[in-house]
Formats: sequence, structure tokens, C-alpha cells
Amino acid sequence: MRSGKRTGRASEADAAKDRQRGPRDERGVLADQILKAARASFASRGYGATSLRSVAHDAGVDPALVSYYFESKAGLLDAVLVLPDGFLEGITAAASAPLRKRGAALVQASLSMWDDPQSAEILRAIILTANHEQVAMDRIREVFAVHILRAVSDNLSDDERSLRAGLVASQIVGLAITRYVWKIGSIATIPSSQVVDLIGPAVQRYLVRP
Amino acid sequence: MRSGKRTGRASEADAAKDRQRGPRDERGVLADQILKAARASFASRGYGATSLRSVAHDAGVDPALVSYYFESKAGLLDAVLVLPDGFLEGITAAASAPLRKRGAALVQASLSMWDDPQSAEILRAIILTANHEQVAMDRIREVFAVHILRAVSDNLSDDERSLRAGLVASQIVGLAITRYVWKIGSIATIPSSQVVDLIGPAVQRYLVRP
Repeated sequence: MRSGKRTGRASEADAAKDRQRGPRDERGVLADQILKAARASFASRGYGATSLRSVAHDAGVDPALVSYYFESKAGLLDAVLVLPDGFLEGITAAASAPLRKRGAALVQASLSMWDDPQSAEILRAIILTANHEQVAMDRIREVFAVHILRAVSDNLSDDERSLRAGLVASQIVGLAITRYVWKIGSIATIPSSQVVDLIGPAVQRYLVRP
Repeated sequence: MRSGKRTGRASEADAAKDRQRGPRDERGVLADQILKAARASFASRGYGATSLRSVAHDAGVDPALVSYYFESKAGLLDAVLVLPDGFLEGITAAASAPLRKRGAALVQASLSMWDDPQSAEILRAIILTANHEQVAMDRIREVFAVHILRAVSDNLSDDERSLRAGLVASQIVGLAITRYVWKIGSIATIPSSQVVDLIGPAVQRYLVRP
């Protein structure tokens, strides 16, 4: 127990931990279960209205186990904001694709993350949590300010690079939200390859148009 | 009192109403105050975690007054989801601009709503509430399915019209979110006229590109 606040429940909590800790494999499963519940709660109720206890309840585990794995609500938020495996690698690879293919590559990289249900769940939770929580918003800003910026040619002024990265972000964010979060009309149902064909050129123009 | 659930508090509530109702001008002010609190709460805590009582508290009025004006939480949500004055008129006018200027007109119409602080507050609350509430989401879908669709030429198949409207929506939504909600980098700080010059052509291509 690292949290001083919960010492009154320490022995009960310890007993619960002993019951629920289980073998290593099971621990990973329980931590995932807790994270899934935290993502849903931060996204739908917001960070403020979520408590370790409510997350434990939603995950069907003892609150002590949530403290044990994540220490505090801030620790749980940190864990929820970890980008999906391969996300930054995907953006980085797309950002260094040959310039004439880079627009399509960025759209493609974004779609492959969103088309994977596990990654999509993580991204969706980060976006929805960012609506309430500055820390989540800062994580998103970092992705765009640092990683999308790499896609823009070095041979431009800093102002122009930042502006072009912002234009790319406006299209990629809008695509993710309308297609995967809001699911508006046919933009949500056409195959990803068609989306790349339709939206890639717009992103390309933001990267290279004079 | 139209709500049967609160009859236990009826006389107290009536007394509070008599105290707070005041002259007609003041009523409008109080209703606005309540709506403002409701918008902030639906957007940040979500619809589920908001109660008439918490809205009354945030607005600094008696809960009876919230029931009096808005009847129920659903009534409050309906009021929060009313689009800003002139929003649909602006989109409709842009959608019937001469085709060669229509992309820029749609971007311009969207920016003028968001550049007005009162309209922006309403739009922001609708978008954030839509993350949790289907009713809010349906309102947004309707704007895109009905009103943006009008911007697309009638001479196309229904499938193609819906797809083009979706592409336009993806760019306009992404612009609104990165510029006004997330405020990412220079896309959030450049003047609106520059945004129209930069993003208008992308929207135009979605409308007319073969």
C-alpha cells in the first residue's frame, strides 16, 4: 500500500490483494481489465467523476487491486494515456516516406491504428479524456507538434512547418473523429483503401503546396 | 411543478420560485445562467453525472427554478442542443453559394460561428456532449447529413453525394476541433481569412473533384 489515505482499509485490502493477485498471467489480465474500465470511465464520465473505487467496481475487482497496480487516479490516467503499441513508429515511418507518397502514408498510418480494435479503443479514450483533462490534451498536442511536424520538409521556416503540420492535423483528426468516433454516414463505412485515395491528396497538398 | 418525483419539496420549491422568478427580464437572465451551467456540466462531466440539482448549484439558483424553466434533465439537454442562432442559415447560404466559391463559403460559414464566443460555447458543448450522449450525436449527424449534403451537386448519385458530404465534414469538423476545441499550434492562432485561403481549396476539391 503506497497510499497513506487508505490505511484504514489496509488489512482488508491486503487480504483482497492476496485473493486477487493470483499467478502472473492472471495479474496481467486483471490490470488490463482495470485499464479498460478506466478508459471507458474517463472517456464517458470524465476524469473528475471517476474514482479508484468506481473503476474497481466497473472492472469487477477489489479497489485495493487498483491502488496496487496504479497507485493513484493520476497513475491510472498516465496508464490510460500511453499511446497504442506501434502508433509513434507508424507515424514516424509515414513521416519519412518519399515526399510524393507522404500524404497517403500519413492517412494510411492513422487508419491502420484506428482499424485495429484495441488501438482504436485506446485512441478513442485519449481523445475523449482530452476533452476534460489537460494532461490528455497535452499528450495529443505532443503527437501533433512533434511527430506530425516531422512529416513536413525541413527546408521551410519554423512558422510554415508548424502551419502545415496543423493543416495536416486538422484533416487527420477530422477523419478519425467523423469515421471512427462519430461514425457519420458513408465516410464511416467505405474501405480504408478508398479513404486513403480520397483524403491522401488533400493531406499531400497541405505538405507540399506552395 | 410538472415533475411528479419532486412533490415532497413542492411547497419549498414554490416558495423558492416566488423568490427567484422576478420580473421577465431577470427570468431570461436566470434561464441563460442555468443553460450556461448545464452546457459546462454536460460537456465536462457528461450527461449521466449531471443532475438538475448540480446544475442549480453551479448556476447559483434554486433547483426548483431549473425544473420550472426546463422541466427535466432531458428538457435541459434539449435546450443545450439548440444550435446557435444563424448556424443553419449560415450553412444553408454557403451551401447555395456559386459552386466555384462553395468550398471557401462553407469554411467561412463555419469559422464565423466559431469566432463568435457565444455560438462557440454552444457548439463546443454540443460536440463534447455528443461524446457521451446519443441525442447530441444525432443532432450533429443531422447537421451533416441534411445541411452539408445540400452543398453537394444534385447531379450525382446519392452514394456519391453522401460520400462527398462526409469528406467535407471530415475537414470542417477537424478544423473546428483542432482550431477551437484543442487549440493545437498555429492552426489555432492564424486569422480566419488565412484559414479560408488554406482550407477552402481542400473542401472545394471534395465538392467538385471528379
